Amino acid sequence: MQTDNLLKQISFIKEIDKLKYILRKTKLFNSDRNENDAEHSWHLAMMTIILAEHSNKPINILKVLKMVLIHDIVEIDAGDTFLYETTKSHTNTEQELIAARRIFGLLPKEQADDFIAIWQEFEDGVTDDAKFAKSMDRLEPLLQNTSNNGGTWAEFNVPYEKVYEKKKAIKEGSTSIWEYAENLINESVEKGILKKND
Amino acid sequence: MQTDNLLKQISFIKEIDKLKYILRKTKLFNSDRNENDAEHSWHLAMMTIILAEHSNKPINILKVLKMVLIHDIVEIDAGDTFLYETTKSHTNTEQELIAARRIFGLLPKEQADDFIAIWQEFEDGVTDDAKFAKSMDRLEPLLQNTSNNGGTWAEFNVPYEKVYEKKKAIKEGSTSIWEYAENLINESVEKGILKKND
Ligand SMILES: [Ca+2]
Repeated sequence: MQTDNLLKQISFIKEIDKLKYILRKTKLFNSDRNENDAEHSWHLAMMTIILAEHSNKPINILKVLKMVLIHDIVEIDAGDTFLYETTKSHTNTEQELIAARRIFGLLPKEQADDFIAIWQEFEDGVTDDAKFAKSMDRLEPLLQNTSNNGGTWAEFNVPYEKVYEKKKAIKEGSTSIWEYAENLINESVEKGILKKND
Repeated sequence: MQTDNLLKQISFIKEIDKLKYILRKTKLFNSDRNENDAEHSWHLAMMTIILAEHSNKPINILKVLKMVLIHDIVEIDAGDTFLYETTKSHTNTEQELIAARRIFGLLPKEQADDFIAIWQEFEDGVTDDAKFAKSMDRLEPLLQNTSNNGGTWAEFNVPYEKVYEKKKAIKEGSTSIWEYAENLINESVEKGILKKND
């Protein structure tokens, strides 16, 4: 049984290597090199450990770490969805659910069920753990775009209003981090790297 | 105080982005693209969560996750040291300690001290948590090299004896994973992708 589990776990460990090839729209800090999903997930895990003290509510750090480490694994099959994409839904698409079942399904059943449940909890964004995980996922590209002269906002003509609308989810996880983030957004408008709609 | 902490934490979060540019000798699975330290650290974190049940001793998963997520951050200043390097020491070099103090020192003092202690515990490799973390760090490149027709073993003429010597540290963390790993090493010799010394 233990050996049987191990073989399934190794096949999953090999499969998720593919996350390193899924490129995001966002670039690394002060860079024109696209970030991949594995790097992004590592960065969110570090941010979770470091910023947990700013959470509005007590969180289970281990649970949040699992969320951010696995949240993009479905993109191995389903591809990256840009945050400001308008023609494609962002949460729990049928395609993503099929991907979750296939990829996490490589694991022993108990682990597979656990990972699918944690991924769903992240996607739903209702629990305190999910809200904090989502705030990390919103903060990282905000920091990157401001370091890159507007980054994807400039590249894809995303106006202030849409950025503000998407980023205010940070407040659900942490009001103190949102205060910092809101300042960054306003400064970006002042600097001219983020444009308001006319 | 909280704002002061947050500004320090953000500067650390920006600084560690550099880990994404530190290339390892090892290549991704079935690939000739070098892995970077951020991708490697994410993969070890996933492996820790998935394989924890195989640990010889009970471990603190959150502590082990912190270890594997931060274990290579000193390489931002000190560079990657190849496992089979013979002319450079591997543990707690003076250069790495200076790097740890500079980079973790960007954080608020309590967090900086905590991270430096966790990094040292990993480097010392004495506690059960550190032993399991090290076994993950040894297992990933073994899986990669066997998927790449010998990978760095072939590229740098590393013989079976040296591989065996380095990889048997896996046993300290998990005898069942070591059993699997030892089989992989022996199979590699049979396949001719790992050579014994004459
Ligand atoms: Ca995504």
